[in-house]
Formats: sequence, structure tokens, C-alpha cells
Amino acid sequence: MGAKRVVMQRAGGPDQPGPVMLAIAGDSGAGKTTLTRGLVEAIGPNRISSMCVDDYHRYDRAERVGQPFTPLHPACNYVGIIEQHLQLLAMGEPVLKPVYNHGQGTLDRPVLFEPREFVIVEGLLPLHSRLARACFDLRVYLDPPEPIRYGWKVRRDTRDRGYREEQVVEDLRRREPESAAFIRPQRAWADVVARFAPIAERGENGQAPLSATVLLRPTAPHPDLSGVLNEDTREAIHLKLARDVDGKPVDALHIHAYAAERTTRRVKEAIWGALGIDDDVPDCLGGIEPGVRSEPLAILQLILLYHLLLAAGSRADQPAVVAAPAPVRAPASGS
Amino acid sequence: MGAKRVVMQRAGGPDQPGPVMLAIAGDSGAGKTTLTRGLVEAIGPNRISSMCVDDYHRYDRAERVGQPFTPLHPACNYVGIIEQHLQLLAMGEPVLKPVYNHGQGTLDRPVLFEPREFVIVEGLLPLHSRLARACFDLRVYLDPPEPIRYGWKVRRDTRDRGYREEQVVEDLRRREPESAAFIRPQRAWADVVARFAPIAERGENGQAPLSATVLLRPTAPHPDLSGVLNEDTREAIHLKLARDVDGKPVDALHIHAYAAERTTRRVKEAIWGALGIDDDVPDCLGGIEPGVRSEPLAILQLILLYHLLLAAGSRADQPAVVAAPAPVRAPASGS
Repeated sequence: MGAKRVVMQRAGGPDQPGPVMLAIAGDSGAGKTTLTRGLVEAIGPNRISSMCVDDYHRYDRAERVGQPFTPLHPACNYVGIIEQHLQLLAMGEPVLKPVYNHGQGTLDRPVLFEPREFVIVEGLLPLHSRLARACFDLRVYLDPPEPIRYGWKVRRDTRDRGYREEQVVEDLRRREPESAAFIRPQRAWADVVARFAPIAERGENGQAPLSATVLLRPTAPHPDLSGVLNEDTREAIHLKLARDVDGKPVDALHIHAYAAERTTRRVKEAIWGALGIDDDVPDCLGGIEPGVRSEPLAILQLILLYHLLLAAGSRADQPAVVAAPAPVRAPASGS
Repeated sequence: MGAKRVVMQRAGGPDQPGPVMLAIAGDSGAGKTTLTRGLVEAIGPNRISSMCVDDYHRYDRAERVGQPFTPLHPACNYVGIIEQHLQLLAMGEPVLKPVYNHGQGTLDRPVLFEPREFVIVEGLLPLHSRLARACFDLRVYLDPPEPIRYGWKVRRDTRDRGYREEQVVEDLRRREPESAAFIRPQRAWADVVARFAPIAERGENGQAPLSATVLLRPTAPHPDLSGVLNEDTREAIHLKLARDVDGKPVDALHIHAYAAERTTRRVKEAIWGALGIDDDVPDCLGGIEPGVRSEPLAILQLILLYHLLLAAGSRADQPAVVAAPAPVRAPASGS
């Protein structure tokens, strides 16, 4: 007997800061993977790792037949294990991550997932529980209008996952009550809520590329855009003090799809410049698929990069994180 | 930003004691599963859960072809994840445990493993690392002579795992260097070392049932057997002050296979009685397979039960653990 009981230890010791953790929540087809891909490419896969919490499904596709819930239901996922693994990752520890095979609908062998300097956790339920939310430095919710999301999901699932369109539509219908009960409530916990959609007041009709409304909640120190947004640019991009759907005050950044390239470039350079990075704004930002770009997406990604790099910079007081190839400095002006 | 960073939390809160954790280490075929089965049956599967760390193999059978190591090598196992999961279990937390399918040689989907009042962790490498060892209340190593272990392994693998005898023998030959390098060194870290073998000084010839030598190291408070072991019983069972192979002092309990049933019963009742349990000694102890029993095995299992129940009793000062159906009291006499 007389075992020494140990408290969970970080591999790097107690002084080693954990990674910068970003959550990207949203319903199936909301654009989480596209948003994540540009961020990973901009920072580089040697500095950032990303994972999807949908891998923590409790049942495979065959087992779900006849069950009273869809994969959107917390009971259909190992929610407690998601919390445990997010805590471990936030402490800089690796996890043995389960794997859901979307093509086959099977649960496969787990894989070792190691956090790097930055970790993106995307999926249906990363902001579902208090303990999970507490693990993130920044929380994002993707909130496209349902008809647009339906279109994106049908396109993806028929092209990449082997479903027929009518199967996807039926699936969306079955999932709607759980989407309302468990997915959409996560919007309330996000620091940034992004909605890609035509902006009706401007008479936009939904032709690609879409405009974006990015809500910047006062729960996070967003980049200061006051120097770049002025009368010259306001037709294309502007910040508006607004009330959120719950009545709370919020900054709403409208980025119109018809913004001139020189205008969006000035906005992007202003955000990038606030970080004190000498390199050009990464080209990969805004990429949707080969040959298709969205400047509103690029600006959203830049705002998220701003947060990630700023958080890493503030940890760089402790030496372990200064491995960043690009020098990271505090922004020139307070934000 | 401004995320609250959380320290790993126990589901039951900081005052809830974790489970009593028992490690059973030993080479392939050493009898770990047989020893574990009797303990689980005696305590009852609602109060004890058991797992095997061999499930934490990093590679499946096909991937191991051509690799320079066997499954005995730490590099062939997720040793860091074993440490992490043992720490979580010791804190009373569930883990999503990987699964190695011995029949198919594949890594399958993980399963949720929840600690109960007691947890047994058996396998090839549970005592390999310092952090893993620190998670246990009691550490056991099974140490049969190699010819006896070879016989047990050949029998099990040809009967249950679909191998031919010559395959098992070749496998044992290949594994020997890693067995010497990684498995047998764990013996040094055990509180109890059990060796089932003929005792040569008595002219025993290896006919079943085997006698046992159980080393009781002074690293744990073992049951006081002085009241029951005397001149009447010493032909059959006796405690001997000895030096271990490393020269360190140790109590060696010899249990001869030819001990009369009334003698072994008195020893068993004395250990059981020291725990203050009114029920009879559980019948399941000593079972090897249907119709085959070993009294030396039963006595080893009783010594381990003594440790488990004593540890649970000492935690029962804190209310959460008193769920035991059998009343657990401190032993009548100091030990």
C-alpha cells in the first residue's frame, strides 16, 4: 500500500503554457472545415493541429438505426470524454482520439492527437458544456441561414460522403429538433458569430460570393478597426453598433461581397499590421475550393488569426512558445 | 479571450477518493487473467472493474510485420497514454480505452471504461514507468519459471487465439530479449511477487496442482499470519525470512500443493477473519478452470483481497466508499 497518488501532470511541467485553443462550432455543413483549412494553412501544420469533436460519436451508423436521437444529440456522443480530452489538450497533453469514419459510418481505431502551439477544435458540440467552453481561448459559431446551409450540406454529402440528395434532405428534417435544442444554443457562448448570407437591406440576391456579417462580442479583445473603416470604405465594409438577437450590445462587422479588392486589401493589411508581422497577408486566406475565393471569408480568418497570434504572443513571455517563425508583437495601438 | 483555464477535475469533487487500484504485471501466459478472474468474482462485478493495458498497442498485427520490436516493447505501446489513463482512473474518472482484438490482431473501436470501487489493471507493462506505478495501491508481479509459463502460453494461444504450437514457440523465442529488457524488470517494483512452481527442496516434481512461493515485500502492510502458522501447519505452509534475488529482505510464504485441505482452510479463514467479514471465504477463489482448483492460488487471492478491502476500509472514513455490501472493518489485530 502507501501508493503515492499523483495529480495530473503536464508533460512540459507546470510552467509550460498550454496551446492556444480555438473552438469552431456550427451545424453540419455550416462551413467549419473550410474556415479551419485556411487557418491551418496560414499558420502551418507544424504549428497548429485541428480535430473534430464529431469523432466522439458513441454509436456507429448501424447502431443508430432505430435510436430515438441523431448524432446531434449529446446522448449520442461521449460528452464527458470530450470535456476530459479538451482539458488535457489545454494542458498541452496528447490524447488518444476516437475516429468516426464518415464514409463508412463506422467507429475505427483511435489515433494519437498531439496539440501544437495552436489547436482548432471544430464540430457540432464543442461549446455544449461549461467545462468544454472553459478550455478555449476563443469561441466561434458559424451561423449561415438555414437554406444556405442546406445547400452546402447537400452539395458536400452527395459529393464526398456517398449520399443521394433526398437522403440528405430527409436527414436534415430528422435532425431539425435536435439542431434547435443542442446546436443553435451554442451561438450564445461564442465570442465571434459569423453569418455568410446576402445582406437584404442592400438588395443582395444570394449570388456567390456571399457577404458576411461578423458579430464581435465584447467578451474578447477584437482588433481595432477604427483607423481603417471610414467614409471611403463604408459602402463596402463597415462596423455597426447593434443589438444581438438576445438584446445584448455587439459590434456587427458587415463585409459586402462587392467590396472593391483594394478596400478589402486595406482592411486585411490593417488587421495583419496590428500584429506587427512583416510578411504579406497569407494568400491561402479566403480559399473555398480551387479557383473559388471569398474576401469576406479571408477577413473573418484574419480576425481569428489576430486572436490566435495575440494569445500566443501574450504567452511568449514564457519562453516555450517563442518557437513562432513569424515574430509576434503586441498590437501597436490598444484594442 | 480571457478563457478560464481549468485544472483537471474529478467528477465526484476533490473530496471523493478514487478507486482502490491493483496492478497485476507479468509476461504473456503468466496467469494474470486467472488471478484477476477470481478476484473480480469474489468482490462482484458491480464493485470492481478490470482492464488490460495490452489494449494500448500502437500497431496492429499487420503493421508489426517487419518492425524491429514485439508487442512487449514500450515503443510498441502508447506508454504515455497508459500513464494518462491510469492517472484519470486513480482520480475516479472514466477513460475511452483502446481495444486490441487478440483473435484478429486488429485495433478496434475504443470503449468507455468506468472505474468502480476497485480497479484491477493487468498486462505486460502496467509497472513499466514511474508515473504508472504511482497510480496503484498494490503492485503484483507473476513470476512463474519460464518452462511453466511457456506451457501455459502454448496451451492458451493454441486453444483460444488460433495459433499453432510452433508459431507460439517461435514467438516466445523472438520475444525473449524484450521480455528480459522490459517485462521482468517490473518484478523489482512489486509489493507481492507470486511464483507457482514445484518447490525443489521438497522434491516436488511439477505435477498439478503447483505449490506457490509468495514474496511479501515490506513495501506493503501484509496480513499478520503469525497466529495461524505454527509447528502443526509448517509442513504445508510456512513463512520464511529470506533474501530476495537482489539481496533485500523479504517474507517468503511457501504454500505447498500437498497441504491438507483443513490446513489451507485455517489459513484462509485467518486472513478473512482479520478483515472482520462475517461471510464465508468466497468459493470462487482458487478456481483455474471448471473442475480445476488450486489452494495456493486461493491463498494468494485472499492476500490480495485483504489488501483491497483494507484500502477501501481506510477510505471509508470518507462516506462515498461505504457502498460495500459486506461490512468492512479494520483488522482485529494490528498487522
